[in-house]
Amino acid sequence: MNVLVLHGPNLNLLGRREPEIYGSDTLDAINARLAAQAQGLGVVIEFFQSNHEGALIDAVQGAMGCRDGLMINPGGYTHTSVALRDALSGVAIPVVEVHLSNIHKREEFRHYSYIAPIAVGQISGFGADSYRLGLEALVHHLRSKKAS
Amino acid sequence: MNVLVLHGPNLNLLGRREPEIYGSDTLDAINARLAAQAQGLGVVIEFFQSNHEGALIDAVQGAMGCRDGLMINPGGYTHTSVALRDALSGVAIPVVEVHLSNIHKREEFRHYSYIAPIAVGQISGFGADSYRLGLEALVHHLRSKKAS
Amino acid sequence: MNVLVLHGPNLNLLGRREPEIYGSDTLDAINARLAAQAQGLGVVIEFFQSNHEGALIDAVQGAMGCRDGLMINPGGYTHTSVALRDALSGVAIPVVEVHLSNIHKREEFRHYSYIAPIAVGQISGFGADSYRLGLEALVHHLRSKKAS
Amino acid sequence: MNVLVLHGPNLNLLGRREPEIYGSDTLDAINARLAAQAQGLGVVIEFFQSNHEGALIDAVQGAMGCRDGLMINPGGYTHTSVALRDALSGVAIPVVEVHLSNIHKREEFRHYSYIAPIAVGQISGFGADSYRLGLEALVHHLRSKKAS
Amino acid sequence: MNVLVLHGPNLNLLGRREPEIYGSDTLDAINARLAAQAQGLGVVIEFFQSNHEGALIDAVQGAMGCRDGLMINPGGYTHTSVALRDALSGVAIPVVEVHLSNIHKREEFRHYSYIAPIAVGQISGFGADSYRLGLEALVHHLRSKKAS
Amino acid sequence: MNVLVLHGPNLNLLGRREPEIYGSDTLDAINARLAAQAQGLGVVIEFFQSNHEGALIDAVQGAMGCRDGLMINPGGYTHTSVALRDALSGVAIPVVEVHLSNIHKREEFRHYSYIAPIAVGQISGFGADSYRLGLEALVHHLRSKKAS
Amino acid sequence: MNVLVLHGPNLNLLGRREPEIYGSDTLDAINARLAAQAQGLGVVIEFFQSNHEGALIDAVQGAMGCRDGLMINPGGYTHTSVALRDALSGVAIPVVEVHLSNIHKREEFRHYSYIAPIAVGQISGFGADSYRLGLEALVHHLRSKKAS
Amino acid sequence: MNVLVLHGPNLNLLGRREPEIYGSDTLDAINARLAAQAQGLGVVIEFFQSNHEGALIDAVQGAMGCRDGLMINPGGYTHTSVALRDALSGVAIPVVEVHLSNIHKREEFRHYSYIAPIAVGQISGFGADSYRLGLEALVHHLRSKKAS
Amino acid sequence: MNVLVLHGPNLNLLGRREPEIYGSDTLDAINARLAAQAQGLGVVIEFFQSNHEGALIDAVQGAMGCRDGLMINPGGYTHTSVALRDALSGVAIPVVEVHLSNIHKREEFRHYSYIAPIAVGQISGFGADSYRLGLEALVHHLRSKKAS
Amino acid sequence: MNVLVLHGPNLNLLGRREPEIYGSDTLDAINARLAAQAQGLGVVIEFFQSNHEGALIDAVQGAMGCRDGLMINPGGYTHTSVALRDALSGVAIPVVEVHLSNIHKREEFRHYSYIAPIAVGQISGFGADSYRLGLEALVHHLRSKKAS
Amino acid sequence: MNVLVLHGPNLNLLGRREPEIYGSDTLDAINARLAAQAQGLGVVIEFFQSNHEGALIDAVQGAMGCRDGLMINPGGYTHTSVALRDALSGVAIPVVEVHLSNIHKREEFRHYSYIAPIAVGQISGFGADSYRLGLEALVHHLRSKKAS
Amino acid sequence: MNVLVLHGPNLNLLGRREPEIYGSDTLDAINARLAAQAQGLGVVIEFFQSNHEGALIDAVQGAMGCRDGLMINPGGYTHTSVALRDALSGVAIPVVEVHLSNIHKREEFRHYSYIAPIAVGQISGFGADSYRLGLEALVHHLRSKKAS
Repeated sequence: MNVLVLHGPNLNLLGRREPEIYGSDTLDAINARLAAQAQGLGVVIEFFQSNHEGALIDAVQGAMGCRDGLMINPGGYTHTSVALRDALSGVAIPVVEVHLSNIHKREEFRHYSYIAPIAVGQISGFGADSYRLGLEALVHHLRSKKAS
Repeated sequence: MNVLVLHGPNLNLLGRREPEIYGSDTLDAINARLAAQAQGLGVVIEFFQSNHEGALIDAVQGAMGCRDGLMINPGGYTHTSVALRDALSGVAIPVVEVHLSNIHKREEFRHYSYIAPIAVGQISGFGADSYRLGLEALVHHLRSKKAS
Repeated sequence: MNVLVLHGPNLNLLGRREPEIYGSDTLDAINARLAAQAQGLGVVIEFFQSNHEGALIDAVQGAMGCRDGLMINPGGYTHTSVALRDALSGVAIPVVEVHLSNIHKREEFRHYSYIAPIAVGQISGFGADSYRLGLEALVHHLRSKKAS
Repeated sequence: MNVLVLHGPNLNLLGRREPEIYGSDTLDAINARLAAQAQGLGVVIEFFQSNHEGALIDAVQGAMGCRDGLMINPGGYTHTSVALRDALSGVAIPVVEVHLSNIHKREEFRHYSYIAPIAVGQISGFGADSYRLGLEALVHHLRSKKAS
Repeated sequence: MNVLVLHGPNLNLLGRREPEIYGSDTLDAINARLAAQAQGLGVVIEFFQSNHEGALIDAVQGAMGCRDGLMINPGGYTHTSVALRDALSGVAIPVVEVHLSNIHKREEFRHYSYIAPIAVGQISGFGADSYRLGLEALVHHLRSKKAS
Repeated sequence: MNVLVLHGPNLNLLGRREPEIYGSDTLDAINARLAAQAQGLGVVIEFFQSNHEGALIDAVQGAMGCRDGLMINPGGYTHTSVALRDALSGVAIPVVEVHLSNIHKREEFRHYSYIAPIAVGQISGFGADSYRLGLEALVHHLRSKKAS
Repeated sequence: MNVLVLHGPNLNLLGRREPEIYGSDTLDAINARLAAQAQGLGVVIEFFQSNHEGALIDAVQGAMGCRDGLMINPGGYTHTSVALRDALSGVAIPVVEVHLSNIHKREEFRHYSYIAPIAVGQISGFGADSYRLGLEALVHHLRSKKAS
Repeated sequence: MNVLVLHGPNLNLLGRREPEIYGSDTLDAINARLAAQAQGLGVVIEFFQSNHEGALIDAVQGAMGCRDGLMINPGGYTHTSVALRDALSGVAIPVVEVHLSNIHKREEFRHYSYIAPIAVGQISGFGADSYRLGLEALVHHLRSKKAS
Repeated sequence: MNVLVLHGPNLNLLGRREPEIYGSDTLDAINARLAAQAQGLGVVIEFFQSNHEGALIDAVQGAMGCRDGLMINPGGYTHTSVALRDALSGVAIPVVEVHLSNIHKREEFRHYSYIAPIAVGQISGFGADSYRLGLEALVHHLRSKKAS
Repeated sequence: MNVLVLHGPNLNLLGRREPEIYGSDTLDAINARLAAQAQGLGVVIEFFQSNHEGALIDAVQGAMGCRDGLMINPGGYTHTSVALRDALSGVAIPVVEVHLSNIHKREEFRHYSYIAPIAVGQISGFGADSYRLGLEALVHHLRSKKAS
Repeated sequence: MNVLVLHGPNLNLLGRREPEIYGSDTLDAINARLAAQAQGLGVVIEFFQSNHEGALIDAVQGAMGCRDGLMINPGGYTHTSVALRDALSGVAIPVVEVHLSNIHKREEFRHYSYIAPIAVGQISGFGADSYRLGLEALVHHLRSKKAS
Repeated sequence: MNVLVLHGPNLNLLGRREPEIYGSDTLDAINARLAAQAQGLGVVIEFFQSNHEGALIDAVQGAMGCRDGLMINPGGYTHTSVALRDALSGVAIPVVEVHLSNIHKREEFRHYSYIAPIAVGQISGFGADSYRLGLEALVHHLRSKKAS
């Protein structure tokens, strides 16, 4: 089982950017913990971060045929990117959407996600723990599907 | 650590009601798995289901002073109950909101949650696994808070 | 053939409450006429009225497996209850929605019904006669379905 | 007692047009059954179908002074014709609005009816049976009014 | 100077239809007064009424090249007919829009006129006198234009 | 018969301000023509212009008990002044609303008039001629009322 | 004179729930002060609190024929309960609506009250003093009505 | 303790303007009763009425440094005046907003108040009694604040 | 292969009506070019123009069973006719929608088409060339379908 | 070159009113600095402040023919005054709009400016420095225009 | 004559991505056919595909001064990219917008195109044939323009 | 003091793109003038332009820890980029937003800026002079902050 984790714009600033909203962990620390968790779950995991919508789309397309699942924190593109949504539904790989902050208690424009309607599910508000939960959710979903 | 799980209206039908949306697990099966999970986590857990908005509010109020955390699947009240929201923010106990189905891909009126803005976070779309993730998330949140 | 008639909030006041809108028949008188009509149609009929959304949901759930059809006047819950709608679509029993007054000529907030999209059909505006028509419609629907 | 039944645009296609939505009865078959029903009720009945908004308005106006009641299925004009509404409220003859399909579960633009707010009531969703119910409702309404 | 007066749907009912809204004059009486007024103003006038949107459009087109001005009471088509608006702007003859009732104090859907933005001006609310004022306005407008 | 004409903000600039929209007549020229017209109609007329919402309200109140009718061009206050509307409906003197330009073809925010729903009627788009028509309409309305 | 005071959901938490919004008085303390005030006014008073919409409706209905006036703080049901509004307008007993907090400065969804349009009036924002003012307002209203 | 009462536009017409909405008391009568009430409460009171938004703003500013509290019935400016709101929040004197009529049951545009979100509270619908209640509420609020 | 071309309201004015928007070709010229093009494609073609919504619907219905494809420029009915849409989806013949002008850069109310969602596709903005492209598109679509 | 600076409602309170939003400079201090700046730029400058919408309009009109440019901080009238906008576009003198606070980060109703669409440009959010920048912008604009 | 064809995000997946929506042709196949078609038309053609909004903008800018026309399928950027629209209107080269699927029958957010209002026209819904039609339309448009 | 100037998409076309909207200065000319102005102010300045949203975000992030202030003209991304806004608020460097054209008088979709609510202030409409004013505003802001 092979999983790609996509981090959207500004997530490379984690730990340095508005810690009262996004927490004090760095992205490297999060990725390291995810790698350990993946190993425990017997899952191959890789990571990609970009501030470029197009680069994220390229990465999603690159997953076609070689990844079993995707976990994405689309950052600001959550609310504005039809193109990213189209890439995700185009490759037809199960995707789990995660957010560090609870987007439903922030500005009005953060309440709508273009990604959620084509994702398996959405996890929002648990800080860095959203990623851990997201990986569990994704692996569980993929194993259930395979089992059925 | 002491946690109450609240199941809103129609969740007692689980396994029998629209399984293509809500899955084939019964509520008892879900509760049994949560109880086992809680034991593993060293957490006391109890369950309450009701179709009555008022009974859910009574239960939330009853948690005041004796529960450390709440997990709720508010069902149809998610989208209509200011009173339930007020109860949850009134008792000031951390609450995690879970949904079996991905509410963001269903009817327009299911996209808004009155509960989400006063919850720690929201988990939506993973079927019965949403509960398992929700309990993990809640316990992790409570332990982090205590630690800090 | 076995039918349950559900009367929502304030319908127990019928005959006493705003007769210029709702007419001067009491609920007992309406139920008595429906019972006679049902007998003529060879249908078993029972009645339930409650002002409690949760009690109505309980009653809908109780119909699962033992009723062939439901007729409901959801009263004020027509416009606000996702939970009642979920119960009705959850039990998957054909339901006919009736209203004494013509909800489409009243306040804006009465124009939308959460129930109508999951009902067989809606009858609105004929006073107590809406119930008689609704029972005919329901029985006709059930018999057509069985025939086909 | 003298009743005119008005069929709006495309109802002449009944039985041939989208039978999964509108059923397989032809308009002639429906009219024949209504005629028999009317005879049983001791009511004179006539029928008019047109695809032309103006022809329907002419027919409504022609009913002034010679019809006691109207039953109309305004078809697509339900949602767009202020002129037809004005004709109906102008002649001041009681009118019952019927729809074969349940307009409340179809496209958003079919939810609003210009006719409903000036009709006695609306019946929607029972296929060809909507007409039978509509005639009963209309005759019952006219007889109650006369009686009072 | 040659003027055509167009009466939209249901105006043939004038004097018989909802006199508390539209007054008790018949359309013939109004036309007769307009004819006299036109004669006094040295203007040729003709009249056309139809309940058919298409017939009104035909009449507007027929005015091309042979009328100097148009006065129209578009009735219910005021609020729904893009096609009539297109005809009026297509023939490029100055048009004055009149209404018997004050459309701005009636139902919300009567507040918007598709015709007004392409008319010289609009006169609304003076009963049959709206027509007299409209003819004065139109003739005055045409004479000013010619003078300039 | 005694009539007050109220000119709202910026109408004192007439002839100098945006003549392509408002025409080249000055307010004095318009008032002079209205005075002559009033004399012809056997009506006493007076004029008041102000850029101050409060002064216009004072003038409306001052008309109570001593004016039979009001004609008002509320200018920019048309679209923003509830207080002016309240004054006009408070004194219960028939009021005719006039506009030089056709407000229905200008910016969206000029389409709604707070005054129209409490006026006898509205005349819009005929340049300075709107005033002449408005005075005719007002006098005709007052004489019809007295006659009835 | 006989008055019933209805406290909606979560008001039993008063003094314990979000005191920065709702104040530090308990409901018992407020009721005690209201009882003393009622005695001073020569009015019989009773109290009822429930978190159940249905129970509040039952209580409103129970007031029919035996109460002269109602004072209600509908809590969260203010913004969501058509059924409670229908009960209040159904029993036709004068009702005064009170709120501890100023609902007009809180979340958007708290700005609309289903109750206000069928109440005598609304008092909002004065903490526990809203109740005292509400009782004065209600008694004054009832005595004025009786006097006239 | 020193209080200023501000009466907005058209309130000088009280007793003469639409008594079925605003009651038959004159403003002088109301002020006289308020003066007596203030004396009973040991409070200095003054009154100011104007139809001019600017004059009301001047009066609010004049209260800075010499008044302890304000009571205002902003009349039509309630729904349109950002400038009056800014004045009131600028002087930072506690203000109570009162309305004679129940603004929540009148036209849609009267439901929103620019003043309410910066007021202590709002009292609406009790006729002239709204003022008496407002003065009580204001004095009670000021005394509580001083006490704390 | 047999194709019907439908021209909606005001298209008979082509070449004379607002040439800066609609071009200077007449409808006859366009039809002649389409006939030649059809001959080249080996397709039978006929034309129908009407200003009457009902006549267009009649023509659509008349195509049932004898036409393989439809091309329609619905003119002003594009934005207002549910009945025409219902006719087109009722006959279940593939339809291509064309517009001379680019409706997406004109008034807001021209942006929505009732026809587009039930058409194969839409071509808009190429003047008379839209028809040529539309015929190509339609024939290509029909031949692909047949081939598959 | 001759410039008039207009200060809208409540700006006379500057330095005393909500300094955390508007800063601690008084209006006199700002005007003094602007006068010095104008002298440096070789520009004649005058100032006018009023809380009265009408007085501001009078001042705008008074500038006609004797001022080359206007700088305005319309305060609360920014969001509500069509009349002030009409005055500014009526006199056709270039106007620069300035705001002390960043109106785009405050309440929703402060985001729309009636003035901006008819101004040269808008400067918002720099405290008292907005005025200095506005004067520079205005003088630069006037000199460029003259140069071209 | 020299034409650039721009393919937006995810179009490189054509043939592999959701073939039931986008068809089974690959982008290379489409480009090959377009190249042949261009040769037949005597037109030089080049192609560019990118998932990057910025790269598409760069390409549009690169066309300035060296291309006569553009054809673009903006994919997901159709609905979200003001910057791409600005580039297209900035270079002032005629552009034709094409879509494989009929965007007017898909999700609500796909109905609005930022590109359409600045394009010559839009072709939507004909699968790969949309490109062929688009090229014809573009060449025809460029030749007509040159001819005039 | 060290400042970075960011130019968004299409600003590299300045002088060549729609000069009636954006002026005839090239970006190099503007940058040169800004460099001279910065030198005069004793400020280090650098410039960056990109059509790529991601590249702009990278540049914003690169400013963290080495720039004191940012000036940005976000071009088309003003209205669509949550990611750019997040970058700007993430690095917590004061930012001034400038626009050449007056965005408030252009298309509706240009009225909202995602950047403005997190900027110090916004300057819009002064052509190339907006940049000069923006730099002054930024430096003044930074120096005031340092001083306080």
